[in-house]
Amino acid sequence: MISESSARDPRGKAIAMSDSSAIPTSLDPETIEPRHGTTAYPPPFRAVCEGRAKRALGSVFALTQFGVNMTELAPGAATAQRHWHEREDEFVFILDGTATLVTDAGETELAAGTCAGFPAGRADGHMIVNRGTTPVRLLEIGSRAAEEVGHYPDIDLRMEKRDGAMRFTSKDGTPYAGE
Amino acid sequence: MISESSARDPRGKAIAMSDSSAIPTSLDPETIEPRHGTTAYPPPFRAVCEGRAKRALGSVFALTQFGVNMTELAPGAATAQRHWHEREDEFVFILDGTATLVTDAGETELAAGTCAGFPAGRADGHMIVNRGTTPVRLLEIGSRAAEEVGHYPDIDLRMEKRDGAMRFTSKDGTPYAGE
Repeated sequence: MISESSARDPRGKAIAMSDSSAIPTSLDPETIEPRHGTTAYPPPFRAVCEGRAKRALGSVFALTQFGVNMTELAPGAATAQRHWHEREDEFVFILDGTATLVTDAGETELAAGTCAGFPAGRADGHMIVNRGTTPVRLLEIGSRAAEEVGHYPDIDLRMEKRDGAMRFTSKDGTPYAGE
Repeated sequence: MISESSARDPRGKAIAMSDSSAIPTSLDPETIEPRHGTTAYPPPFRAVCEGRAKRALGSVFALTQFGVNMTELAPGAATAQRHWHEREDEFVFILDGTATLVTDAGETELAAGTCAGFPAGRADGHMIVNRGTTPVRLLEIGSRAAEEVGHYPDIDLRMEKRDGAMRFTSKDGTPYAGE
């Protein structure tokens, strides 16, 4: 799942606006304020996202069926903990830099201009990490299911989404402290 | 709707393969054979797509919930006839070149690195045209509804999709010759 926040404060300078609303038709993503390192993961699992900056683009256009993030990864940062989803398809396109895709098969370099895809229900966790020394910029697209389960093969974490609200627990359902 | 064909003959040199199948996990889009100018439009409306080359990426990864095309527009070519959808969200990201977005509001230049979004049901037709002298390359993402209606404000065309099968007629439902 692409955890794109709603466009609360996009500060988006729209290039073109639709006739009758504040929803833009097109925009320059650089005009959207990024969210730095924000994640709903319980505290033990947050560090991996510290160098991650996400610009939520789909919500700005009022898209509801899939989310689109333009995400920048500083050296060492990852898109997410390694995971797979039961119901949501995902797609990633590398815009700049060289990223590393981690799956059950190991690590694969993804150069700028290459892409990756993760169909719903394929039980092979994925994450994209910046193992280099310069920033990586990528687009993440993920469909949005109201009900979803996320699996994290490397850590004691499970995500359940009901009516669109995500909840993270340990694999046996125990809540984490502070959740 | 993003009319991405199924991956019949992708000729995709996979960079990473999933364990147990021929579905790649990542790839270089340039290894996918493009479809040149193919469109299901009735003959009178096909010319606009003649300089268009589409690489269907989502299907190669077995994604079913949204389609992803990497599309190249030669000077003069367009992504589609100007249209809007009742049920499917669309998103476009310009990778290279300068494109022109056409909506009810008129024409807007979209530079490389900018994006556009079209929520399902917004009754404002859109198309992206290359009015320049060098190629435009873009990503198109569109959700996939089994049942859909497409509206074409500038021409006598209507699209209906039932059980995933598209059918184009004139606005009053009359089939076009040869359809």
